[in-house]
Amino acid sequence: MFYTQMQAAQKGIVTDAMKVVAEKENMDVEVLRDLVAKGHVTIPCNKHHTALQPEGIGQKLRTKINVNLGTSKDCTDYEEEMKKVHHAVALGAESIMDLSTHGDTKVFRRLLTKECPVMIGTVPIYDSVIHHQKDLGELTAEDFISTIRFHAEDGVDFVTLHCGITQHTIEQIKHHKRKLNIVSRGGSLVFAWMSMTGQENPFYEYYDEILDICAEYDMTISLGDACRPGCLADATDICQIEELVRLGELTKRARERGVQVLVEGPGHVPLNQVQANMEVQQTICDGAPFYVLGPLVTDIAPGYDHITAAIGGAVAAMHGAAFLCYVTPAEHLALPDENDVKEGIMAFKIAAHAADIAKGIPNARDRDDRMAEARQKLDWEAQYAVALDPEKARRIRESRAPEEGHKEACSMCGKFCAVRSINKALEGEKIDIL
Amino acid sequence: MFYTQMQAAQKGIVTDAMKVVAEKENMDVEVLRDLVAKGHVTIPCNKHHTALQPEGIGQKLRTKINVNLGTSKDCTDYEEEMKKVHHAVALGAESIMDLSTHGDTKVFRRLLTKECPVMIGTVPIYDSVIHHQKDLGELTAEDFISTIRFHAEDGVDFVTLHCGITQHTIEQIKHHKRKLNIVSRGGSLVFAWMSMTGQENPFYEYYDEILDICAEYDMTISLGDACRPGCLADATDICQIEELVRLGELTKRARERGVQVLVEGPGHVPLNQVQANMEVQQTICDGAPFYVLGPLVTDIAPGYDHITAAIGGAVAAMHGAAFLCYVTPAEHLALPDENDVKEGIMAFKIAAHAADIAKGIPNARDRDDRMAEARQKLDWEAQYAVALDPEKARRIRESRAPEEGHKEACSMCGKFCAVRSINKALEGEKIDIL
Repeated sequence: MFYTQMQAAQKGIVTDAMKVVAEKENMDVEVLRDLVAKGHVTIPCNKHHTALQPEGIGQKLRTKINVNLGTSKDCTDYEEEMKKVHHAVALGAESIMDLSTHGDTKVFRRLLTKECPVMIGTVPIYDSVIHHQKDLGELTAEDFISTIRFHAEDGVDFVTLHCGITQHTIEQIKHHKRKLNIVSRGGSLVFAWMSMTGQENPFYEYYDEILDICAEYDMTISLGDACRPGCLADATDICQIEELVRLGELTKRARERGVQVLVEGPGHVPLNQVQANMEVQQTICDGAPFYVLGPLVTDIAPGYDHITAAIGGAVAAMHGAAFLCYVTPAEHLALPDENDVKEGIMAFKIAAHAADIAKGIPNARDRDDRMAEARQKLDWEAQYAVALDPEKARRIRESRAPEEGHKEACSMCGKFCAVRSINKALEGEKIDIL
Repeated sequence: MFYTQMQAAQKGIVTDAMKVVAEKENMDVEVLRDLVAKGHVTIPCNKHHTALQPEGIGQKLRTKINVNLGTSKDCTDYEEEMKKVHHAVALGAESIMDLSTHGDTKVFRRLLTKECPVMIGTVPIYDSVIHHQKDLGELTAEDFISTIRFHAEDGVDFVTLHCGITQHTIEQIKHHKRKLNIVSRGGSLVFAWMSMTGQENPFYEYYDEILDICAEYDMTISLGDACRPGCLADATDICQIEELVRLGELTKRARERGVQVLVEGPGHVPLNQVQANMEVQQTICDGAPFYVLGPLVTDIAPGYDHITAAIGGAVAAMHGAAFLCYVTPAEHLALPDENDVKEGIMAFKIAAHAADIAKGIPNARDRDDRMAEARQKLDWEAQYAVALDPEKARRIRESRAPEEGHKEACSMCGKFCAVRSINKALEGEKIDIL
């Protein structure tokens, strides 16, 4: 008998995955098991993803970050793309979403679940077109469902499915006149398919069949938010919250079937609405782990959206978001290059870490304390060692050498270095500035 | 009879500076006058800074940002440094702090107040050493005060003075065993001077004389926070809050003399403590404009501290901080170069703007709405036009051209572009993806 992590947890069984996660989080495994049983922690771990070193996502755990990669018309070299994956993992990504939209997508997907130790997510609707070699309007409900099954068999740990919109959403979107309607890629495809065919959303209509597939492989459903706001003006509106209510209902149905879920969230949200968004999701979805894209707290900064999103992401995670999808400087503009990927990961490692300290994850601040101690001693090697990006820190300092005679400081303050002054003062030494 | 802005406001006089500020903020000038009278808005505008186009800082106004520049041993070319100043102003800095620590500082200072249209701040204690050509221990209280007078005469709009620490602080710092003691440069010099001479802090002891100088020129005092936390572990501790209490007392004394003040704040603060810090300051200092450095929400990211600080800065400003001092990627490592300055300014324009939307500044979201409308139309030129950094946005998109046949989208999504799909769906058009 195969059990999902949730089913096992509900039966009081501690799985190997739970042991690994509890160890990583330095947490009692029975506490973790209870959280998994309730659906407050999700451990995405498809039974076919044998290379996986599992991570938990949810309450009381460190905030995790996801990195989007995948083949596109511009990049169909699988080995090259795998290098990016390994680089992202080395930089601290706990999850990779394979958003491939070109070429033989299963080759790359299987390479991922064979080699990649972090959880793998996909958005099967992207792949339906490619997999079945039919254009959107020609695809049938069965085609969509069979793509989900292929992804489950290939070992995908979680799939984003836009189950929460219906034919009624078409009316809602037309009626409420949002500035940006739908900006979710997968959501827009479901919407367009419903518009073209006049049929109900297959991801909603055949949800029970989807749950059966997910239960068979312990593939987590990441309930996509098709109506996530694409600009501040659309945030927390009727379309968004109506879908969230349905995601709450679908969360319950998944739990009844023993299927693990994540719930996806905004998007673009004014900073003062972020906390409310997190709280509403947590109540409506009964503590299911919230997976947010950003949120971006302004629309005006293309080229810097890793920053606009890290601001929102940090605040979201402080108020309960468990999983942050990174955003790069290329967001809204182009496919991110290698440097963009790194900038995005760094910004989101910062957001997640700042939130972990804020939400009181035990020992989250230890590394900061080590940095403070290294700074107090003006021990630069110790500072680099504990830095998020030792190479960049070293490069900046060494590119602009400190003044002669003040090598212990840096060129920002030179002989005015506060740490140097205060250390001397506390030791009763004379301070020479001139 | 010369009145400071505060004195004028209290007498019911609407000054030219108030008119300019009210116009910029699209606000009733009587409302502004009342805020200035109460000290809830400060308009730093030294009567000798003739090139100034004044800005207000405080309640109900847009959040302003400051950029630190100045000559150092590495850069004593005044014309070169002025280029950086003009570049910073063009990028949106509302204030320049001249932190020069080398060369003939008055040449650059006078150049600034002669040419620069934004408010100019300084930290006179840095300059005391240079101006009087005496090392720190040899300087007298009179030397410090006379430096303040020189800066006032040169047209400086606001001066950071560390008036809030006393001989008692030396005991506090020794007793409470902070991880990083004092990280404020000016604060550490005052501390060291007090330690070496055994005398009371002259900026505290001769505060009335300083107020007289400030009143004479309408130079604003920015009450420096010597004990601002330099790491998360030291945040919101006894040393910080004890000094804040004294800054509250000094704020009252300044107001009684008709002198405008800003109050400086942290520093390094865990994200969950930022709101409380803002609220405590606003109550203790009775609504005086709060000028914060960051705050940085983690210590572990040298090389990315513009991001760690923009997160804290956005949240601080949402909760009431009125003035943000920018932080660059070179913070803690080196003197920022031109690119660092730009990155820092962009991060802080984002933080300030996101906060302005969050705190309900009228029309703050207009620009975001224009971006949303341009995105809905896939009008790239309109997007660049409204972007914070049009050049970078254009460069990223154009460096990675979209797919052939989908020139209206970008290379991130290509034919999967959600905006394209939804626009076609809403117009009843067929969507081709394959």
